[in-house]
Amino acid sequence: MATATGLLAELAPIGRDRGTGGYDRLAWEAPTLELREWFAAEATRRGFDLTEDGNGNQLAWWGHGDDALLVGSHLDSVRGGGAYDGPLGVVSTFAALDLLRARGFAPSRPVVVANFTDEEGARFGVACVGSRLATGALSAERALGLRDQDGTTLAEAMAAQGRDPAAVGPSDWLGQVGAFVELHVEQGRHLADGEAAVGVASAIWPHGRYRLDLTGEPNHAGTTAMVDRHDPMLSYAAAVLAAARIAEETGQRATFGRIQVLPGNTNAIPVLVQAWLDARADSEPALEQLVGQILAETRQAAAAHGTGVDLTAESVTAAVAFDAALRDRLAGLLGAPTLPTGAGHDAGILAARVPTAMLFVRNPTGVSHAPSEFATPDDCEAGVAALARVIENLA
Amino acid sequence: MATATGLLAELAPIGRDRGTGGYDRLAWEAPTLELREWFAAEATRRGFDLTEDGNGNQLAWWGHGDDALLVGSHLDSVRGGGAYDGPLGVVSTFAALDLLRARGFAPSRPVVVANFTDEEGARFGVACVGSRLATGALSAERALGLRDQDGTTLAEAMAAQGRDPAAVGPSDWLGQVGAFVELHVEQGRHLADGEAAVGVASAIWPHGRYRLDLTGEPNHAGTTAMVDRHDPMLSYAAAVLAAARIAEETGQRATFGRIQVLPGNTNAIPVLVQAWLDARADSEPALEQLVGQILAETRQAAAAHGTGVDLTAESVTAAVAFDAALRDRLAGLLGAPTLPTGAGHDAGILAARVPTAMLFVRNPTGVSHAPSEFATPDDCEAGVAALARVIENLA
Repeated sequence: MATATGLLAELAPIGRDRGTGGYDRLAWEAPTLELREWFAAEATRRGFDLTEDGNGNQLAWWGHGDDALLVGSHLDSVRGGGAYDGPLGVVSTFAALDLLRARGFAPSRPVVVANFTDEEGARFGVACVGSRLATGALSAERALGLRDQDGTTLAEAMAAQGRDPAAVGPSDWLGQVGAFVELHVEQGRHLADGEAAVGVASAIWPHGRYRLDLTGEPNHAGTTAMVDRHDPMLSYAAAVLAAARIAEETGQRATFGRIQVLPGNTNAIPVLVQAWLDARADSEPALEQLVGQILAETRQAAAAHGTGVDLTAESVTAAVAFDAALRDRLAGLLGAPTLPTGAGHDAGILAARVPTAMLFVRNPTGVSHAPSEFATPDDCEAGVAALARVIENLA
Repeated sequence: MATATGLLAELAPIGRDRGTGGYDRLAWEAPTLELREWFAAEATRRGFDLTEDGNGNQLAWWGHGDDALLVGSHLDSVRGGGAYDGPLGVVSTFAALDLLRARGFAPSRPVVVANFTDEEGARFGVACVGSRLATGALSAERALGLRDQDGTTLAEAMAAQGRDPAAVGPSDWLGQVGAFVELHVEQGRHLADGEAAVGVASAIWPHGRYRLDLTGEPNHAGTTAMVDRHDPMLSYAAAVLAAARIAEETGQRATFGRIQVLPGNTNAIPVLVQAWLDARADSEPALEQLVGQILAETRQAAAAHGTGVDLTAESVTAAVAFDAALRDRLAGLLGAPTLPTGAGHDAGILAARVPTAMLFVRNPTGVSHAPSEFATPDDCEAGVAALARVIENLA
């Protein structure tokens, strides 16, 4: 009978950078293909029927029919990510089902293990591609045209792995699903500061990715007097500091983690600084206000430097309130605290279509999307036990 | 008889980006190879003997022997550069010699036209590679190991163009040179605000390129509370604003034009921000003080965020005072103002070995290293006339 930590150990070498200890498990690249093979083998070993929809989402069916209980997560990572974000939910589902089957549990509805494809969006820039396509929240046309850093489209990447781009789109299996539960490592320190190893999600904060295009006048760094400059890097610096200060003051979150500078020479004042703002808040009006304040301060700084500012919302995801009845039922069953999260999840996408719940497993560092992301073996097994109780209760 | 603007027009299509109008003429890439062919053809057409040293510097000899007068500049550009920086000096030399030869001028010493290779350092990261190798200021070993963005070494790039890396090193021709004059478009607005189309260089400011390594704790942008972060991007923003403020207050120059962020995901707090500071000042103590103040303010900000700071001087070039006698002689001959420059030049390298002077041609925009870099046709021809008088006077 498998344990969560035992299964995680099987995955540990796949896509790992030996230098940093971080994982690069990007959609349709070699490590995620290896992880898909692993998922298929685990499903087959348990006698589950493996299906793959046109979007690359893998499902392992224990039983067939309608009103299925879907349980799972994803196996891909961000660049340089940790070992738990995604895989913990998949391995815990297999381990929980092993536990239940060892006890002779016979579900009254189909139980289906899910591995959603491309949750992180690290390669093609859009998160939750597999679940968004399955539910129709993302059109096939837009998804297939997404490009990675090398200019490869998602259509090309899927075709190169023998998938038919014409099959991409809303998934039939969604009509057979009655509820979805996703277990995930916590990406913050709510549980770390308390007694409980497992919590139940109350909501996902609304969040957005915004591209700032800061334009200036290119010039020579050595010969242009400071007062003659129109340097967009100064507006960028002002935006970074404004975002951090406003987010801290209002209890929200704002981050600049990606930037591109043209021409990007050490001795050239830039003509263009493109920077991506990740902003999250506890309500949609608060998110709008946060981004609006950051933009206003950036414009003020840019005006002082005689540079241009343009803000494009590349993706904005509405707040998700998980199904209240299901949330309260699971919190009561487990005696677990409820907590919100600032991160997006496939559960947030499916919540628009089926009653959905999330369990979080305590993360002592609170760190996520980095090699130091962690959950203790005891907490991982507490997560498995909690998930087993949830499946037993719901199925 | 060629004019400077006529010759520039011949070069106009080579390496030009039709979208931006900027030039990409990088060392040992196709556009600079085409420019070398052009230089060879211009030399041959005038009956000059063309030589190329082991470093790729092209020389066109009008006459032979010792105590030669070397005149010229370079044909390469930064990425997205302008049409004048470099080429104006080469075409003006050919045009000035045409003018003198049409008048029947017979020099009393050899006159040699120079096209120095890789002045900008835009591909391999070190400026003035051709002149530094020729004078021994840069060792062959270090130069050959320099790598471009694709990981190609200078040795490989030269070998791919049929050059022998073993021939790289100090150049014999330097012993035959008695003086060097370089004409260059001005990269600032000293002349633009005055009456003179041509000026004489007094000095080159000392300057340096410094790499800031700002380290933090990687984490999830959506789930990590602002107060729990150790985000090196905030230290970077503080460094950018400190550099601009201190440089403006002290009359010096400081620029951040290049940055690299790891992991570089929109939704990830960075673990590392690498940024390159270009700093220049009117004296070496002033440069040290400038960089020291910027570093001190960056450290202060980094300490507040609990992030790390490390500064590496990647290259620091001492101040160059051009030969006083030659400078005064040319300023008197031309009735031209003298002015300092913040930019490095091959003339700054050769000044350590032979009496050297520079002429600057007025640039109405003051812009350099960008498509809007400019000199009017009248000012270009005034530059040719001035250079002809200088050659007539010195040769």
